[in-house]
Amino acid sequence: MSRLSVCVVGASGYTGGELLRLLATHPYVEVTMATSREYAGKPIHYVHFNLRGMYRNLKFSELNIDLLLKKCDTVFLSLPHGVSLNYVPKLYEAGLTIVDLSADFRLKNPEAYRVWYGYEHPYQDLIKKAVYGLPELHRDELKSAKLIAAPGCNATAAILSLIPLIKNKLIHTDRIVIDVKVGSSEAGSKPSISDHHPEREGCIRPYDAEGHRHAAEVEQELSIIARHEIRVSMVPHAVGSIRGALASSHTWLINSLDDTELLRYYVNTYKGEPFIRIVYKLPPGYPDPKYVIGSNFADIGFAVERRLNRITSFAAIDNLMKGAAGQAIQAFNIAKGFDESTGLIIVPPKPV
Amino acid sequence: MSRLSVCVVGASGYTGGELLRLLATHPYVEVTMATSREYAGKPIHYVHFNLRGMYRNLKFSELNIDLLLKKCDTVFLSLPHGVSLNYVPKLYEAGLTIVDLSADFRLKNPEAYRVWYGYEHPYQDLIKKAVYGLPELHRDELKSAKLIAAPGCNATAAILSLIPLIKNKLIHTDRIVIDVKVGSSEAGSKPSISDHHPEREGCIRPYDAEGHRHAAEVEQELSIIARHEIRVSMVPHAVGSIRGALASSHTWLINSLDDTELLRYYVNTYKGEPFIRIVYKLPPGYPDPKYVIGSNFADIGFAVERRLNRITSFAAIDNLMKGAAGQAIQAFNIAKGFDESTGLIIVPPKPV
Amino acid sequence: MSRLSVCVVGASGYTGGELLRLLATHPYVEVTMATSREYAGKPIHYVHFNLRGMYRNLKFSELNIDLLLKKCDTVFLSLPHGVSLNYVPKLYEAGLTIVDLSADFRLKNPEAYRVWYGYEHPYQDLIKKAVYGLPELHRDELKSAKLIAAPGCNATAAILSLIPLIKNKLIHTDRIVIDVKVGSSEAGSKPSISDHHPEREGCIRPYDAEGHRHAAEVEQELSIIARHEIRVSMVPHAVGSIRGALASSHTWLINSLDDTELLRYYVNTYKGEPFIRIVYKLPPGYPDPKYVIGSNFADIGFAVERRLNRITSFAAIDNLMKGAAGQAIQAFNIAKGFDESTGLIIVPPKPV
Amino acid sequence: MSRLSVCVVGASGYTGGELLRLLATHPYVEVTMATSREYAGKPIHYVHFNLRGMYRNLKFSELNIDLLLKKCDTVFLSLPHGVSLNYVPKLYEAGLTIVDLSADFRLKNPEAYRVWYGYEHPYQDLIKKAVYGLPELHRDELKSAKLIAAPGCNATAAILSLIPLIKNKLIHTDRIVIDVKVGSSEAGSKPSISDHHPEREGCIRPYDAEGHRHAAEVEQELSIIARHEIRVSMVPHAVGSIRGALASSHTWLINSLDDTELLRYYVNTYKGEPFIRIVYKLPPGYPDPKYVIGSNFADIGFAVERRLNRITSFAAIDNLMKGAAGQAIQAFNIAKGFDESTGLIIVPPKPV
Repeated sequence: MSRLSVCVVGASGYTGGELLRLLATHPYVEVTMATSREYAGKPIHYVHFNLRGMYRNLKFSELNIDLLLKKCDTVFLSLPHGVSLNYVPKLYEAGLTIVDLSADFRLKNPEAYRVWYGYEHPYQDLIKKAVYGLPELHRDELKSAKLIAAPGCNATAAILSLIPLIKNKLIHTDRIVIDVKVGSSEAGSKPSISDHHPEREGCIRPYDAEGHRHAAEVEQELSIIARHEIRVSMVPHAVGSIRGALASSHTWLINSLDDTELLRYYVNTYKGEPFIRIVYKLPPGYPDPKYVIGSNFADIGFAVERRLNRITSFAAIDNLMKGAAGQAIQAFNIAKGFDESTGLIIVPPKPV
Repeated sequence: MSRLSVCVVGASGYTGGELLRLLATHPYVEVTMATSREYAGKPIHYVHFNLRGMYRNLKFSELNIDLLLKKCDTVFLSLPHGVSLNYVPKLYEAGLTIVDLSADFRLKNPEAYRVWYGYEHPYQDLIKKAVYGLPELHRDELKSAKLIAAPGCNATAAILSLIPLIKNKLIHTDRIVIDVKVGSSEAGSKPSISDHHPEREGCIRPYDAEGHRHAAEVEQELSIIARHEIRVSMVPHAVGSIRGALASSHTWLINSLDDTELLRYYVNTYKGEPFIRIVYKLPPGYPDPKYVIGSNFADIGFAVERRLNRITSFAAIDNLMKGAAGQAIQAFNIAKGFDESTGLIIVPPKPV
Repeated sequence: MSRLSVCVVGASGYTGGELLRLLATHPYVEVTMATSREYAGKPIHYVHFNLRGMYRNLKFSELNIDLLLKKCDTVFLSLPHGVSLNYVPKLYEAGLTIVDLSADFRLKNPEAYRVWYGYEHPYQDLIKKAVYGLPELHRDELKSAKLIAAPGCNATAAILSLIPLIKNKLIHTDRIVIDVKVGSSEAGSKPSISDHHPEREGCIRPYDAEGHRHAAEVEQELSIIARHEIRVSMVPHAVGSIRGALASSHTWLINSLDDTELLRYYVNTYKGEPFIRIVYKLPPGYPDPKYVIGSNFADIGFAVERRLNRITSFAAIDNLMKGAAGQAIQAFNIAKGFDESTGLIIVPPKPV
Repeated sequence: MSRLSVCVVGASGYTGGELLRLLATHPYVEVTMATSREYAGKPIHYVHFNLRGMYRNLKFSELNIDLLLKKCDTVFLSLPHGVSLNYVPKLYEAGLTIVDLSADFRLKNPEAYRVWYGYEHPYQDLIKKAVYGLPELHRDELKSAKLIAAPGCNATAAILSLIPLIKNKLIHTDRIVIDVKVGSSEAGSKPSISDHHPEREGCIRPYDAEGHRHAAEVEQELSIIARHEIRVSMVPHAVGSIRGALASSHTWLINSLDDTELLRYYVNTYKGEPFIRIVYKLPPGYPDPKYVIGSNFADIGFAVERRLNRITSFAAIDNLMKGAAGQAIQAFNIAKGFDESTGLIIVPPKPV
């Protein structure tokens, strides 16, 4: 089987680097372009020290759309929000498979872009064609997708933690609080004061506490499942980890269910999912992103405080993997008809 | 003025070490005993490497109650839960001032010990005499206190975050979720698998998610303020910091208040408090325990998500300081009539 | 091709866990036994949370030698020093391939065991049959090896950093100082005060500074290359990383060589080595174990201080991979005639 | 006693922040100016979150030399190398006491500036008047100093580790290797790729391995002690700590001395020094900067490898304290005739 020719646009950032890491051993793919304005002309390992020796015949290049269209079958866009959408129409028209890792095509309601991202979305027709790239919810649509909007990292954790509870109508949906904790790689590879090592290491720092953008996707997806509008509060916190996102979704049960019943709902909800692992009781007790690092797994679990009939549902992911590059490739595999796990059979190391 | 003779019982742990650190420069105090079963006979810096040179004439000793009664005016008990109560009656009877850093005298309702700590409390008369050592709530009672029950670290953060909202009746009190994040020193100095460096560093790990003991004290204190019974959900998470606890208390406002009004409530609630600092808008945006490390400060702040009328109220402390040793000495200062800040004028370093 | 049946003895530690991680995707191997005294009867992910879902049909078991001999073709011994040697004779006699990750068969000179490890080695004949499992030096001997002594982690880094200089007679060999920095996983999975998170995180702590055991293997191997006796000073330092070992080998050049000449020596020395990567000038400048984490790579580089004609030669490895489990499997692959990289094609993630 | 009016120039960086932290509680000082080009007009805690509440009547201001000359008695210059020297002549002429924390006046040999810093020093007369601010070597000269050149952090650790050996002529001085490990705060508060949290945390990364600038000061000071020219190799390594610098100075003993004799040399060398603590044998075995963090202590120790007669001498400091701001204030205290420890009685916390 000849390999698909793939381009990674925005390849010098952390998500771009993870895409390159994963695609380096993907058996059906050859990366033929990796663009970076800043590092054009430099070898891949000039930025991604870990990839030394992996891409001997590839250098970063400027983004040349014409060349891209000529050479590539699939393009992964790892660009800032509001930038991707400038390239998507032309790529779409040319028939390429597009996996966009920005937020530009995640939301179905055009109004939401204005509220959460501050711009009027210019391509409302393309919004409709985009598939939200969460395989656990949209696997069938992904099978023929040409434009995949890869979910946000915190959104992925939040949604995965709540699907079993929403789908099975187990909780009151009026006061959902999703308290998220995330590692520093989520902020990207661009240096900043707030992620400067001396400031970031050891921090426990709330941010976006007046409303986190990812709430928009979470509400969209959970509302589809619930078949009524759901609103969620989402409060992220920066902690000193490098990788990892944990969503702790605090809600109240409608009925009193014992753990066994609840566990069954979780297990059934995710039956057959290649990257979902249910964590129950055995150590370390609850999901911890530390134990999925480097892999595409999402570890899911829950705890009920009986006296209050409150449940916290947890989802732990590697923000750059199931929260970005890994999930993007999972969706790409589905779209291309490959086995969903192709190139993603990575066992997380421990301790790390 | 001659110095008070002070004993630290359980002096080899982290809280004991912090007490020794603070008392080393307290101008009205001399530490004349520091007990440790494990390290009796060893110099203080055999365990507390940081204190090298500070206690040249003191060694760890076995706990000898008779000697303690003879030599000491005040005793700080830094012992495991359920152990302190064995010593308190005799010390109390002998007229010593006792600051107990365990949970043994924090709760007023004897039933609560059974529910949360699993034992029948044998000294119900002493429970009544104990003062819960949170100066912000019990300063007057502390002035004549002989038995001070120093609050738990997570409880301190939780209570301080909620006082302004409860006292001023600003929130619905039926669904309070306190999501707490804590550093590893909170688990104490005894090695364990879960706090072994390779396992703990970089973790984001929920624990006690079915009900955290500190909820008992939080409910007790908030109920007093509210004048009706309040129940709270408290879900702690271990993160990779060494020191620090952040309480993120998620609640819903009764009325829609703008930030200025809310800020005024916070400022007024804590007016004149020597160790409370209100954090509002300026960087880093919200309280972060990173910036109180080593000090007795509690940094307090809040964020409102307007579209949901939800408020998150934050309190950031150093769990070993305002969450343990620092607050214990603050309460002790009040009980002894010293200026409340004596020995506690420590400016936190940054970055650290 | 039917899979080899493999046993991991001492499978609950960090090295055991890494062996299980790697063997889980090794195409020619099936792990049929994983022994652990402490966790016998528990599922693998009871200890190795990362391996959840990987070993559905395997549990930890007691070490039963008879069963092992019956079921297994190859055994990896991940046991404390001085324990392995109790099992090796019987396993050897029964014809199994043995990869011993302890120090018990690394040294050729029986006297050295007494000096460095404090015991008289009881099996001097087996010492002679053991092959020191560093493929870069002993690939040919490994091809028929039945007893492989996997090198120590710090020793691996030290030796790899010095081979180009010793082999090409570029340095004075009388005053070699190897200053090593290592992460906490090197100390193993057993909790201890010195590796308790609050004590270990952020430390920069020398240990074994009066003489590090790994000097014995380093001297043995370097002396073979040099064809005269070489002695080295090796001073390890614990730092706050979880994984990683960096050897900084400080020596003096005999002649003044420019960088290009030196680089050529390094490149030629390691030509064709699948897991050696030469780092020269490009960022991050020198080898850093951070960028090989989770992989079997050793990154090698050097710096010359011209005014003193001093060279520092660096080798960076993941102590659990090229420093333990990864190298053990590399040696095993060679012994079994598999492609040397089988099961080891792991691209390190970044950042991590 | 009226307080001295002090100005901190370059007050928004980490060293500036530490100066402000220390001066906030210095009983003989009032900080009346704190300059920062970037943050002029902002409150101090806009940058130094830790100092919230400490400087209610001070804001960052532009550097206005005339105002400074009018208002201030003493100025601390916390500016980049090559910038300080633009201000020093005017300040010196006006009779202010100047403590310069840059390298601009550390070296006595004008040639050395060209070699190590790349510029011709324009004020050779002032070089002669400057006193190298290491109290352990220049206490007497500091007593009347008007221009103090505060030593570099790595240089401080290196020199302190070697004084006992050089002064007492115990070692061969021809092959001194100083392997240094440092935390991220040493790189300053300006964000950079190499100190971006995801890149820095967990790193073990050599830098300046072809020659570290601080070698110039170390050689200067050690040569004075030795009364002959000494050259040293200095190889720093970035590790994942925030604070702390450890110098591991590897040298060879001339005679075989037992530990007791060596210990006596160390103790005698530093007898009466308020900030030097000798660490010998007791846990943690050797100096570790972790246990001096936030304080002005330097912990000094050594280890001898008997079979090679090699000694490693260690010095552990907090790079921002004894390595910068703390030592600057120690020197200032001496220059002003205050007790040397004024404002510096800070007991390091543990764990931190």
